[in-house]
Amino acid sequence: LGMAEALVISIDAMGGDHAPEIVVDGVEALAARRPDVRFLLHGPADRLATLLASRPRAQAVCQIRPAETVVAMDAKPSQALRQGRKSSMWNAIGSVAEGEAAAAVSAGNTGALMAMAKLRLRTVANVHRPALVANWPTTKDYAAVLDVGANIEADAEQLVEFAIMGEAFHRAVHGKARPRVALLNIGSEELKGHDEIRGAAELIRNAGVDIDFAGFIEGDAIGKGEIDVIVTDGFTGNIALKTAEGTAKQVAGYLRATLKAGLLSRLGALLLAPALLKLRAKMDPGRANGAVFLGLNGLVVKSHGGTDAAGFAAALDVAVRMAASHFQAEVAANLARFAAAAVAPAPAGDIAAESRAP
Amino acid sequence: LGMAEALVISIDAMGGDHAPEIVVDGVEALAARRPDVRFLLHGPADRLATLLASRPRAQAVCQIRPAETVVAMDAKPSQALRQGRKSSMWNAIGSVAEGEAAAAVSAGNTGALMAMAKLRLRTVANVHRPALVANWPTTKDYAAVLDVGANIEADAEQLVEFAIMGEAFHRAVHGKARPRVALLNIGSEELKGHDEIRGAAELIRNAGVDIDFAGFIEGDAIGKGEIDVIVTDGFTGNIALKTAEGTAKQVAGYLRATLKAGLLSRLGALLLAPALLKLRAKMDPGRANGAVFLGLNGLVVKSHGGTDAAGFAAALDVAVRMAASHFQAEVAANLARFAAAAVAPAPAGDIAAESRAP
Repeated sequence: LGMAEALVISIDAMGGDHAPEIVVDGVEALAARRPDVRFLLHGPADRLATLLASRPRAQAVCQIRPAETVVAMDAKPSQALRQGRKSSMWNAIGSVAEGEAAAAVSAGNTGALMAMAKLRLRTVANVHRPALVANWPTTKDYAAVLDVGANIEADAEQLVEFAIMGEAFHRAVHGKARPRVALLNIGSEELKGHDEIRGAAELIRNAGVDIDFAGFIEGDAIGKGEIDVIVTDGFTGNIALKTAEGTAKQVAGYLRATLKAGLLSRLGALLLAPALLKLRAKMDPGRANGAVFLGLNGLVVKSHGGTDAAGFAAALDVAVRMAASHFQAEVAANLARFAAAAVAPAPAGDIAAESRAP
Repeated sequence: LGMAEALVISIDAMGGDHAPEIVVDGVEALAARRPDVRFLLHGPADRLATLLASRPRAQAVCQIRPAETVVAMDAKPSQALRQGRKSSMWNAIGSVAEGEAAAAVSAGNTGALMAMAKLRLRTVANVHRPALVANWPTTKDYAAVLDVGANIEADAEQLVEFAIMGEAFHRAVHGKARPRVALLNIGSEELKGHDEIRGAAELIRNAGVDIDFAGFIEGDAIGKGEIDVIVTDGFTGNIALKTAEGTAKQVAGYLRATLKAGLLSRLGALLLAPALLKLRAKMDPGRANGAVFLGLNGLVVKSHGGTDAAGFAAALDVAVRMAASHFQAEVAANLARFAAAAVAPAPAGDIAAESRAP
């Protein structure tokens, strides 16, 4: 299978805390499951060639694309845009912009990746701003939560766009035919949330959007898995995601301390070891690694900066699923319906009905 | 010790899912630790008298105040205000308004309690809106997080008021002399959060406020315990709090399933039982029960609606600590400094320095 016919993913081989080793190991891991996918590996040619030499599966599916500079993990986006035009990150996105690859994956600097992706791929028609979507582990499967930080604010129309993109994303990555969508809100009777949120609910219900909409959801229900797509602005989504990550770590820390408290506990922990290993896998953020920028003319997947090879393979898997799906077409169709409904004012139901009355 | 000299707490004996039994049991529990505190028990006289008859410690410190109606847990605040004027909740707040009690405690309907408290106690001078503060368990102790739902928005000045009130609250309830305060924000370089948040940071640093201010904190750091008071608007705070509650429950659910998975695990769980019991206590929201409305002319503590006797005793304990503290005076002093700085424009440092230059 040559590059021309295969699904091609472009990789920033130098992004992340443990690059390029875990990147190449990640390709090696994914190649075992998906030998049909090809990869463009952007980074220092000699170093990557040496790594590939001892990883035969990865070597069989990778082409090295030399890039001699790297975007620092702590570089500001503006700085990265000025100085990073020959970097592995810039070139990895470039392969998507130039049609050589179906998606780009990087574990590098989020702000820089977002800025470069916006500049090189541009926002798709009928979307005001791209959004960053996260895979949120639930007791049942995964929920797609967006925006988790691409923008700090979102008006009603933008929230609807996020809902449309998140719904198609969930279908593409997790395979559910009709994902259930809700808006994140607070529940108190008197305080029904911001105008934008209520406006978005109104628009989703009445403006031609074809999604299974469940209304509002509160923060404590995100992890229950009854809703597949949770829509919010980037500020709130980022706070919720980080708060959940912090809380999971906090509870895991309590558990670790508990398992070491005294001889009986240590013995008990020993007997529990296999089950606890499974628990750890369940709580592992790497399992669902891969936040995706939605709303650009091209797919860009962001892996956790501190991820390991298995986590990077998971991010590659997200990119492969997205690239092999009908995501872009589904989003375009739903966005066009929404845009048309927004241009043509909705039929004034009650008044029209009255005027038709005898 | 008579009512006149003692610290008096007023109680809505009919608020919450398991009232009035757990309320009276809660008083019984607290009276063992704090026999010096007196209680006004608002509710149906006969029913309360029967309950007190078998709880001698509670009986010794309670006075029953007959109230024949109850605010339903699902009543809308506006409805409660119209129909609830003789209710146990209304009268419990009334005892504070009339100076008979130093604080009121209720496990009832949050919205109704907030509306009644605002109406009967009014907002204190120099505060635009009251806030609801929660005790958030951290790996070290407890953090005070506010606002968690009294308002959905907050401008820069209101966030500063929340910071001042939260700081004094943390000192009153948890006893730290100089609590460390931060504003909840997102961390990305390019997206430094809403204008209100940056404005509040600026004001706290430069407008006469006397608190130990640490700048911004992200969602994943709330539970670490390095910051004692976390300030945010009521929408974001409510989302964060509920998301953390949901995540803790989710992880606890995984753990329960793990402990039951197979014979070895069950045996291990048996050996771990005492340690797991301690872990459970650590994760128990009841331990820090008692969200408080700050910014009113009087103290109102909200206990979880589904709480048990130990949880209700914890809420009573929060009320007692607050009432015995210098909270109101400390807040008034800091608010007055802030109000004065806001009226008198801050000295224009650089220009003044230049004009003094030779």
